[in-house]
Amino acid sequence: MESLINCTEEQQPTSVMTNSWSNQEACRSQKAKCAGGFVLVHAGAGYHSESKAKEYKHVCKRACQRAVDQLRAGALAVEAVTAALVELEDSPFTNAGMGSNLNLSGEIECDASIMDGKSLHFGSVGAISGIKNPVLVASCLLTEAQKGKLSAGRIPPCFLVGRGAHDWAVGHGIPPCPSEKMATKFSLSAYKRNKRKMELAEKMDTGQNQTKKRRQSSENENGSGCLDTVGAVVVDSEGNVAAAVSSGGLAMKHPGRVGQAAHYGCGCWAENVCNMNSYSTAVSTSGCGEHLIRTMLARECSAAMQSEDAHQALLEAMQNKFISSPFLASEDRVLGGVIVLRCCRCVEAQPSPNIQAAMVEFLWSHTTESMCVGYMSAQDSKAKTHISRLPPGTVPGQSLAIEGGVCRLMGIVD
Amino acid sequence: MESLINCTEEQQPTSVMTNSWSNQEACRSQKAKCAGGFVLVHAGAGYHSESKAKEYKHVCKRACQRAVDQLRAGALAVEAVTAALVELEDSPFTNAGMGSNLNLSGEIECDASIMDGKSLHFGSVGAISGIKNPVLVASCLLTEAQKGKLSAGRIPPCFLVGRGAHDWAVGHGIPPCPSEKMATKFSLSAYKRNKRKMELAEKMDTGQNQTKKRRQSSENENGSGCLDTVGAVVVDSEGNVAAAVSSGGLAMKHPGRVGQAAHYGCGCWAENVCNMNSYSTAVSTSGCGEHLIRTMLARECSAAMQSEDAHQALLEAMQNKFISSPFLASEDRVLGGVIVLRCCRCVEAQPSPNIQAAMVEFLWSHTTESMCVGYMSAQDSKAKTHISRLPPGTVPGQSLAIEGGVCRLMGIVD
Repeated sequence: MESLINCTEEQQPTSVMTNSWSNQEACRSQKAKCAGGFVLVHAGAGYHSESKAKEYKHVCKRACQRAVDQLRAGALAVEAVTAALVELEDSPFTNAGMGSNLNLSGEIECDASIMDGKSLHFGSVGAISGIKNPVLVASCLLTEAQKGKLSAGRIPPCFLVGRGAHDWAVGHGIPPCPSEKMATKFSLSAYKRNKRKMELAEKMDTGQNQTKKRRQSSENENGSGCLDTVGAVVVDSEGNVAAAVSSGGLAMKHPGRVGQAAHYGCGCWAENVCNMNSYSTAVSTSGCGEHLIRTMLARECSAAMQSEDAHQALLEAMQNKFISSPFLASEDRVLGGVIVLRCCRCVEAQPSPNIQAAMVEFLWSHTTESMCVGYMSAQDSKAKTHISRLPPGTVPGQSLAIEGGVCRLMGIVD
Repeated sequence: MESLINCTEEQQPTSVMTNSWSNQEACRSQKAKCAGGFVLVHAGAGYHSESKAKEYKHVCKRACQRAVDQLRAGALAVEAVTAALVELEDSPFTNAGMGSNLNLSGEIECDASIMDGKSLHFGSVGAISGIKNPVLVASCLLTEAQKGKLSAGRIPPCFLVGRGAHDWAVGHGIPPCPSEKMATKFSLSAYKRNKRKMELAEKMDTGQNQTKKRRQSSENENGSGCLDTVGAVVVDSEGNVAAAVSSGGLAMKHPGRVGQAAHYGCGCWAENVCNMNSYSTAVSTSGCGEHLIRTMLARECSAAMQSEDAHQALLEAMQNKFISSPFLASEDRVLGGVIVLRCCRCVEAQPSPNIQAAMVEFLWSHTTESMCVGYMSAQDSKAKTHISRLPPGTVPGQSLAIEGGVCRLMGIVD
């Protein structure tokens, strides 16, 4: 496995991580901020042009910083992951929140979800309009569900869509945002371009009596761009993990279409270490929502990460559960990407009884042309970013790239 | 395992089912209708009063008959399961389609999904209003997705919600139905009763400063009734399986709330026999949507059914993956039910080389007070129905009931 960060040192886990450690190095250098943790973010699996590479990297860097600021202030993973997502959604360059793809009717409808590895609670919104940060609604749903039943014994919702989701959000203190403010110059011009393309494709097919033929035409036009859903995975100073994802969905999607970013097990997944799991794992996905839904890729990758060799496990999961999945047998190109984080306590590497060492392994893999990621530990002074690209000559949707690193965190036992 | 149908004869599977058999007995008695198959339906896991038992059983009987009519006419499993669901939705006694629960705003919003075990395609709608048969929209989404890409390479949606789902349905020839026609005298009076209860519960809590306290109050009021989602599982004459589910959702739910009936892996699941699976399996669930989503119960039960002993496998799945699931650790009562069908070819029971025997095992299990089921093979002259109830003295949400039967189908090899 390629190790991309400075503090890396590969270390085989020998035991499960217990529930609490704090960051020793951070304690020494910043007495008021002694919490540790790690964040990995993505600005989508799709196509990231060289001309905009700087912007994509910059937003990933800022998102990591936002999460680390939270972690250093003692926030839980679920709060830090939300902070990272807000930053990613606010960027006009990503397909989430501000600057999201427009649907067939020229409207913005967003999907987002969040999962807390500690409580295993999940919150999600689908096809929501007029809210600048859909992840805040998902996060609020998760928090509200954790409070227990509503009046008259009603069970709180974990998944809201459309107008109902919007009204619930506003009723819970999340301010509405006029839809026209969420569209950008870029998203509006992409919409006009896509609309012309569609009209042209449909015009060309007029008179041809085979729907099948029409449907196969120009199938490469949509595949390589505009899949830049965003997401993040976090482990906090107590060893809790969380994952989140947010997306404006496919360009020119039908109104009401909901993609993987709102779907349980498909857009994100997080599970703390427990009797059943030797590792805490967190996963966030990006790509073609329908492919990611039908393969439940987030949950599949999380389950795979309980194997000893993280790199091999992710490679096999992406190959067998995604590219060669029987659920996508009829698809010629399977488009998606994941970021994965797993962590455990390292008993052997423990320098003294009151100091714990934890190992965080982080990986990304994609079948799309590129994927933009950023990562940072609470020990780092700044985030590292990277645009991963498929090896030259390989075919998007049929091949994959996989990279990652290892970060060892030292912490004082409470 | 309790065998509930006349034609049962327990038989251990020794090999996987191949892709084609037809019903010999049906061929003898009904020359024009020689196809075989089997259907199992449910009218929900919840509480079925003795006073309405006759109605519930009657609609299950009619739904089975509709599916069998289709099977005898040579329809595929996915068509037969849709026919059963339409009948279940049309009944004013079930919480699906006509007579669905009303939400907080007094509106009907329905969820439905369908899965085809042959193509592994999935179609789903969430929080859809003004459509009499939501399953027809889910089914149409599935069919459309199987046709391949849309113009300009766009990927067809598998999941639509709200207004967009309604408009897509109407655009695909499914007639709209005024919402007021879908409400019944019973659903309207239940709404008024629930609203009064809610107002009273909230009034009683006014002045009490503990939200938690309010939330715990009267938690039994909603748990036992109105969870009567409907569903069906089918195996057709070619050995293909399909599953579907449809629900009006929880009474007094927040507008936009989507339950398990629209969620991939949670409401229904179907997988034909393949290299990985020795059995074809189909599952449909009912109960508290949030519990069924967070445990992905349909998919978990389907996976469990690859074990040799179907009864033991379902018992363990319901106990370990539902009642004792770590995903529902904070819930005091876990409410749900499943119907399950699995089938395989029986090589040993094959009377001659050109006759195949297939074994269909069918089961239901629930943690709710009761569950109403019906089942019928294409050999039967009429369906059998049953209201399963928890053993006296056991606690709903903490205990379970499990029953089922075995049906052997004989068929001529094509």
